[in-house]
Amino acid sequence: MSQVEIPGYTYGQPSVQPSPVSMEDLEHIQSCLLWSDEDVQALRRAGEILGPRKEEILDVWYGFVASQPHLLAYFSRPDGPSQEYLQRVRARFGRWIEDTCRAEYDQRWLDYQEEIAQRHFTRKNQTDGAAAEGTPPYIHWRYINALVYPIYATVRPFLEQSGEPPEMVEKMHQAWLKAVLLQATLWARPYAKNEAW
Amino acid sequence: MSQVEIPGYTYGQPSVQPSPVSMEDLEHIQSCLLWSDEDVQALRRAGEILGPRKEEILDVWYGFVASQPHLLAYFSRPDGPSQEYLQRVRARFGRWIEDTCRAEYDQRWLDYQEEIAQRHFTRKNQTDGAAAEGTPPYIHWRYINALVYPIYATVRPFLEQSGEPPEMVEKMHQAWLKAVLLQATLWARPYAKNEAW
Repeated sequence: MSQVEIPGYTYGQPSVQPSPVSMEDLEHIQSCLLWSDEDVQALRRAGEILGPRKEEILDVWYGFVASQPHLLAYFSRPDGPSQEYLQRVRARFGRWIEDTCRAEYDQRWLDYQEEIAQRHFTRKNQTDGAAAEGTPPYIHWRYINALVYPIYATVRPFLEQSGEPPEMVEKMHQAWLKAVLLQATLWARPYAKNEAW
Repeated sequence: MSQVEIPGYTYGQPSVQPSPVSMEDLEHIQSCLLWSDEDVQALRRAGEILGPRKEEILDVWYGFVASQPHLLAYFSRPDGPSQEYLQRVRARFGRWIEDTCRAEYDQRWLDYQEEIAQRHFTRKNQTDGAAAEGTPPYIHWRYINALVYPIYATVRPFLEQSGEPPEMVEKMHQAWLKAVLLQATLWARPYAKNEAW
């Protein structure tokens, strides 16, 4: 999977700036989340299941966004949704499923969380150029955080269909919830007032 | 359960200021969370189970906070934790379990979410006066959001021990997760830069 296939995907590239979040902050957040090595293992297995089905998962998520006008608005101009913008984000969103399952929680990973955060807020329409032009300048924080729930809940059937025993399905699902909540929490950083994050 | 029993608990009282969040915003957030009437029903039942066991649940949560120095710090002065502050917050935290399960999602409820948010951030040490004096001036947002996970995960055994069938336990647990994530999302409001929430 070459990175050049995905427009605007810059994980690990020199253009990604260092995150202002320290590794110690990250560890403290992970402690709050009851994070363990078992979660990392469960996510690796989840990646084997969810990765190959990412287009189906994205169909669910995109169907959900399309059904909620207050969400679709972030991809829309006054005359309607930008299909090109939706498609460019979709390709990165699919990679995000895989990246979430194989995350190393190292500096490179942390830096890219800040990059994603900035793309939601301060630099929302830069990455996708003309495709995003004329859409709202940032995504409101409340929706990013609330979307943790459907992003968590909707992967359950995919995990269940893997044939793994129920205990393993549960472990993978819990690890996925922690991983999504961890990222949403990191994505809050630029939204927060000075030092308050 | 008289409100005067709980120090600083002001739900529904005239001192609580109107929330700047609109009912429409609240509904949009609930839509993101896949909120339904079934969740409300499941929470009502959860309240019958969790309410009477709130002291045991608080023992779990307080044990967790005490085990993490970066969390206990918010209740501590340079010479150590303020036991009086911890106890005053504990009484309100217990009531919060009950309030979460019986929430009406009306204006009064919304206003009190903003009050709680301000007590985490701009007015952290006002409610508890001398008991809180000398402790940090606000709680960092990252920990409030991350604590959604343990607040969610740790009630599971209590729900299971109710004797309800597994499907109902699952429904109650999912509704509880949505309810906690909803509140954390509302509590982010004062932390966010102008309009970005």
